[in-house]
Amino acid sequence: MKITSIEAIPYAIPYRKPLRFASGEVDVADHVLVRVRTDEGLVGLADAPPRPFTYGETQASLCSIVANHFGPSLEGISILERETVHARMNRTVGNPVAKAAIDMAIWDVLGQSLDVSVTELLGGYGDRMRVAHMLGFAPPEEMVAEAERIRDSYGISTFKIKVGRNPFTLDVAACRSIRAALGSDVELYIDANRGWSATDAARALRQMADLDLSFAEEPCPADDVLGRRWLVERSPIPIFADESVSRAGEVARELLAGAASGISLKTSRTGFTTTHRLVGLCEGLGVDVVIGNQIDSQIGSLCAAAFGAAFASTSRRPGELSNFLDMTDDLLAEPLRIENGYLVVPQVPGLGLTIDEDKLRHYAVGA
Amino acid sequence: MKITSIEAIPYAIPYRKPLRFASGEVDVADHVLVRVRTDEGLVGLADAPPRPFTYGETQASLCSIVANHFGPSLEGISILERETVHARMNRTVGNPVAKAAIDMAIWDVLGQSLDVSVTELLGGYGDRMRVAHMLGFAPPEEMVAEAERIRDSYGISTFKIKVGRNPFTLDVAACRSIRAALGSDVELYIDANRGWSATDAARALRQMADLDLSFAEEPCPADDVLGRRWLVERSPIPIFADESVSRAGEVARELLAGAASGISLKTSRTGFTTTHRLVGLCEGLGVDVVIGNQIDSQIGSLCAAAFGAAFASTSRRPGELSNFLDMTDDLLAEPLRIENGYLVVPQVPGLGLTIDEDKLRHYAVGA
Repeated sequence: MKITSIEAIPYAIPYRKPLRFASGEVDVADHVLVRVRTDEGLVGLADAPPRPFTYGETQASLCSIVANHFGPSLEGISILERETVHARMNRTVGNPVAKAAIDMAIWDVLGQSLDVSVTELLGGYGDRMRVAHMLGFAPPEEMVAEAERIRDSYGISTFKIKVGRNPFTLDVAACRSIRAALGSDVELYIDANRGWSATDAARALRQMADLDLSFAEEPCPADDVLGRRWLVERSPIPIFADESVSRAGEVARELLAGAASGISLKTSRTGFTTTHRLVGLCEGLGVDVVIGNQIDSQIGSLCAAAFGAAFASTSRRPGELSNFLDMTDDLLAEPLRIENGYLVVPQVPGLGLTIDEDKLRHYAVGA
Repeated sequence: MKITSIEAIPYAIPYRKPLRFASGEVDVADHVLVRVRTDEGLVGLADAPPRPFTYGETQASLCSIVANHFGPSLEGISILERETVHARMNRTVGNPVAKAAIDMAIWDVLGQSLDVSVTELLGGYGDRMRVAHMLGFAPPEEMVAEAERIRDSYGISTFKIKVGRNPFTLDVAACRSIRAALGSDVELYIDANRGWSATDAARALRQMADLDLSFAEEPCPADDVLGRRWLVERSPIPIFADESVSRAGEVARELLAGAASGISLKTSRTGFTTTHRLVGLCEGLGVDVVIGNQIDSQIGSLCAAAFGAAFASTSRRPGELSNFLDMTDDLLAEPLRIENGYLVVPQVPGLGLTIDEDKLRHYAVGA
């Protein structure tokens, strides 16, 4: 089965409320739907969310690179020739989200053609993921109310608290309020999105030493090379790398240098093929992973869950799979549901993504 | 003096012959002219060459990010507020060539407004750079003929030989022919553009041990983390990092990890502001630098020379400043000249770039 064309369809769906964090703010999902067509009529889908503050890609650059570069270079290739697909795309450096979406859409077709789910095709460990919810910047009482609402509505008991503000005491106060309100039954970890300095991160971690945080993500820029190593060496909790490890070479470098002690894996960043390799790298080196969220739509969240459910190591921790709850609408004909703290991945051929074409027309933006 | 607008004008000028190297091939200069306008009428210029195989930027992405993102975010800022300019641009990750062009165009205005050359404004070490010429892939006899022609026509006596082919013995044969034909009076170094494995690079370096090469650039991918360190540790000649060090954090990381022993600086990649900082980093750490070429037009080459001439450490080695010789035409009203092995940087206010507007109209491509 050969790829005949790859489309990039930009669309925009507003968020109910903006998600605020140290490296940016998102108030509209200005994503790109990627659609891989084949000569046997099967169609694969995935979502590409532009994150200029993390990877430098914009909605315009995603559309241009998929439609004018990667698409034409992949026409005529079999959906089984994934090494060739990646070799061709990797002639162009960077553009990780564009490459990831194409990769996942090809896996979607592959699963459909073989009549197995992507989760089964990848590893088949389970059919669901526990869900962790992300709490963006807000006054402490609003963050507490949001956590309680999410816990009560969806049974979610793990929260990732966005930190990285200046002064960091704002963050300490928020974390303290959340722990006090929700008690010791919930799991909490933090993500500074590079917002602190190494010095302030060390102070913040000391001030939160009694809050039983599981780990801290990107407390300060990985490019603060020596400061970051100093911090990781002294931190009482593991430091997970996220936006600093967007490819295997960076994972290896940061882990070997002692600049990270755990790795966030994001299918919206490294697709299925490369994230699978990263699982091997991290398992081999003996470090924990977490399935992260690229502020994903339902499509992106389903991809992340389908991947996470496939392996024991990625299922160990709850995955960050609930950002879509803040979108006013979505493109899936059958909405994703989080129940009792779990997202169940439909075990149907491929990814099981059915687009509501009316909604796509409605939210599509001018080419 | 405030920035009022930033334009991105795509243009395309064919090369006389394609330049071939391990990571790609260039047969047309499909660059973007960046023009910074100010409220006092002064205009700054720079050139942005897209290098998808190195940074993931395309002509389309450069135009889009300059015209729709960086440009609007910088309107109203004083040309002296360079920290703010970079802080705003750095909200978007990557896109180094776009950022570099804007930075250099602002320095051009700054020099004009203060009535000094950019070279003087930066450091004022000299007014010229010795030139090294790059020899792309071709049969050995053609590479020899090209080197002899360039030596005889322009007085250039330093050559960078593109290597990184498979099998590497092709490269060894080419280097051996060039050394045999040109004798010991010329300086030779090699650039594999990540084309070899660490293993093959070690074999190639052993087979060329008698050729008195000054250094080797990017022999293998920096993302082959341990392989590269192994190679650098054993190499009898310094290993320069180029495309693997596109920002300060990467320079620090590669040098501290023993994965590089010298650094290529490119103004088309890091502009004047950041390249100046990199000079400080490299001098401070005690490693050699070389002024590299991003397959630049005359505009880009003049920018590189203006920067290189400003400091003792960047003037120590010949700069790679002659790629424009292979272009069929260029945009400057007064063409650059290389004579007696030197490129003289006109010591006029700013960069001294005057565009031939007829040529620009002729080579501009549809927006």
